[in-house]
Amino acid sequence: MDLVAQYADIMQVGARNMQNFMLLQALGKCGRPVLLRRGMSEAIKELLMSAEYIVAHGNHEVVLFERGIRTFATETRNTCDIAAIPAPNELTHLPVILDPSHATGKRSLVPAVSRAAVAIGADGLLVEVHPAPEKAISDGAQSLDLAQFRAMMKGLEPYIQLWKMSRPLAIRVAAGH
Amino acid sequence: MDLVAQYADIMQVGARNMQNFMLLQALGKCGRPVLLRRGMSEAIKELLMSAEYIVAHGNHEVVLFERGIRTFATETRNTCDIAAIPAPNELTHLPVILDPSHATGKRSLVPAVSRAAVAIGADGLLVEVHPAPEKAISDGAQSLDLAQFRAMMKGLEPYIQLWKMSRPLAIRVAAGH
Amino acid sequence: MDLVAQYADIMQVGARNMQNFMLLQALGKCGRPVLLRRGMSEAIKELLMSAEYIVAHGNHEVVLFERGIRTFATETRNTCDIAAIPAPNELTHLPVILDPSHATGKRSLVPAVSRAAVAIGADGLLVEVHPAPEKAISDGAQSLDLAQFRAMMKGLEPYIQLWKMSRPLAIRVAAGH
Amino acid sequence: MDLVAQYADIMQVGARNMQNFMLLQALGKCGRPVLLRRGMSEAIKELLMSAEYIVAHGNHEVVLFERGIRTFATETRNTCDIAAIPAPNELTHLPVILDPSHATGKRSLVPAVSRAAVAIGADGLLVEVHPAPEKAISDGAQSLDLAQFRAMMKGLEPYIQLWKMSRPLAIRVAAGH
Repeated sequence: MDLVAQYADIMQVGARNMQNFMLLQALGKCGRPVLLRRGMSEAIKELLMSAEYIVAHGNHEVVLFERGIRTFATETRNTCDIAAIPAPNELTHLPVILDPSHATGKRSLVPAVSRAAVAIGADGLLVEVHPAPEKAISDGAQSLDLAQFRAMMKGLEPYIQLWKMSRPLAIRVAAGH
Repeated sequence: MDLVAQYADIMQVGARNMQNFMLLQALGKCGRPVLLRRGMSEAIKELLMSAEYIVAHGNHEVVLFERGIRTFATETRNTCDIAAIPAPNELTHLPVILDPSHATGKRSLVPAVSRAAVAIGADGLLVEVHPAPEKAISDGAQSLDLAQFRAMMKGLEPYIQLWKMSRPLAIRVAAGH
Repeated sequence: MDLVAQYADIMQVGARNMQNFMLLQALGKCGRPVLLRRGMSEAIKELLMSAEYIVAHGNHEVVLFERGIRTFATETRNTCDIAAIPAPNELTHLPVILDPSHATGKRSLVPAVSRAAVAIGADGLLVEVHPAPEKAISDGAQSLDLAQFRAMMKGLEPYIQLWKMSRPLAIRVAAGH
Repeated sequence: MDLVAQYADIMQVGARNMQNFMLLQALGKCGRPVLLRRGMSEAIKELLMSAEYIVAHGNHEVVLFERGIRTFATETRNTCDIAAIPAPNELTHLPVILDPSHATGKRSLVPAVSRAAVAIGADGLLVEVHPAPEKAISDGAQSLDLAQFRAMMKGLEPYIQLWKMSRPLAIRVAAGH
């Protein structure tokens, strides 16, 4: 970890390590922000408890990271638990980002789910892009090529602007005022 | 059914009746549009097959209706399968609408999930509203009062406008062009 | 229903109708025992509440019927929730039976799951048998042919005998004595 | 790991580490048999692929370990996927054992699920026992006390004997002969 932290700007914890508690404790002292991916069958509360391990060991820069959960619904690779983006806001100040690529497993759904994530208030997106997805060693079916990514970002731009403007109202509405 | 169809503008099939095939067949001849709610553990493909029963018996006005699926994630009443809104577009021309109230079970999440639904291209929303949710016989926790509904609609309005403008581009992006 | 009840010894409610409340109420007055199949995503508690509809309308002869639940684990057609056989015993006196055919969807697993069901105290089994499973219109892959069914019953017989003998001890052990 | 392997007779991999591939590779060279717990949302096939990591790195003594999967059915702590005990037999020679304590989370169900496991052909059981479960720091609700464990084993004994005798027939029946 020390070696990686020398070169990486941010540390990402994979879904399968979300409850690797020795790793979480070590990340508490790594001096880098941490992207903490929610495990594929973990509850939001468990994600927060894993984040707590990192915070309790001294690192407050933790980003909660949704990447889809495992359900019976297999038309998409995972089920995008979109309500899990605003839900933690009632419990924590930590930012929440989404990986629409893993959440759907399907290139054609990535721009649509990304729009939903922006509109619901995600603090970020992590999108898989590959210059030649059909040659990707893994995850090609969910990767955008460069032109598709450019088109997606162009389509996303007005939603990002709108969210920035409407955020204060959205927060008041969620609070019931 | 005949009696109801005389007075109702639209017929709604509850999630638990999504595969009540005799009912679906009868709805094929009811002369009213049908809202077909997805069962809580049914695949998108099964929802389409149920719709097919109605269509095959003569009624082409079927609306697919997402209301959340049942998963291990119980922080929300159901899991809002947001990708199931655009996913059927690749298979059918039938419109898809969302019930953000059942999908979350939680009043504070309804406006946020509604924004996501608009941005992802839902053809409609069915939102539970009650003049006094705390006195509702059922589903009070997920119902908005009138002022909250008004505030939500105000917040939603620019997203609806934006979606209307950006829809042609969104369709091209989803198709990979 | 009246017509069916004239000829049938027992009425079976399919999983998709477990919460068809008008049907359940009518079954309360049908004068025949009722096999009530658990819905594929319904909790044990919900199964009991559906049974309550039948009982409350006058019919005490209700059999709870497990047929597998829908989960992410798709190696078998459904997931056999074996603990759901003894679990209701703590809440109700109603008998519980299992359909090992639907619960697994796989002929080769039916005898093994049937042994488990006997040993755990199932009050009955409903097994799919077909003289020529490869020609069955539906559910052939989970159906035994006559010779396989005979072999299975021969293998099951000593487990049935053993359960009959050991039942009183099993009940005491479950109660913690 | 080297230090543990000096003293421990067997190495157990927790469910949350089932896909900790560096750990699996190291276990391939640890010189001790390995109990590999299935992750709470992992498919049987994924469990086998994790076992393959250990085997491919030189350790053939791997035991597949079922401990319940995570589903919507929360009456029990996990859902005991009983068919996952015989199912791998069609794919591998590795033994399969069950933890009825985690699989149910409930003391009163442990003896019943254990009987089912024996009858279905589990190669072993790992049962939580505590001299004073009500004082246990964790997992007390699913732990048997010493007298309960003794009573359970007494009740289990004839099932174990019966399984030993009937195993050859069971294998033939599963193979369809």
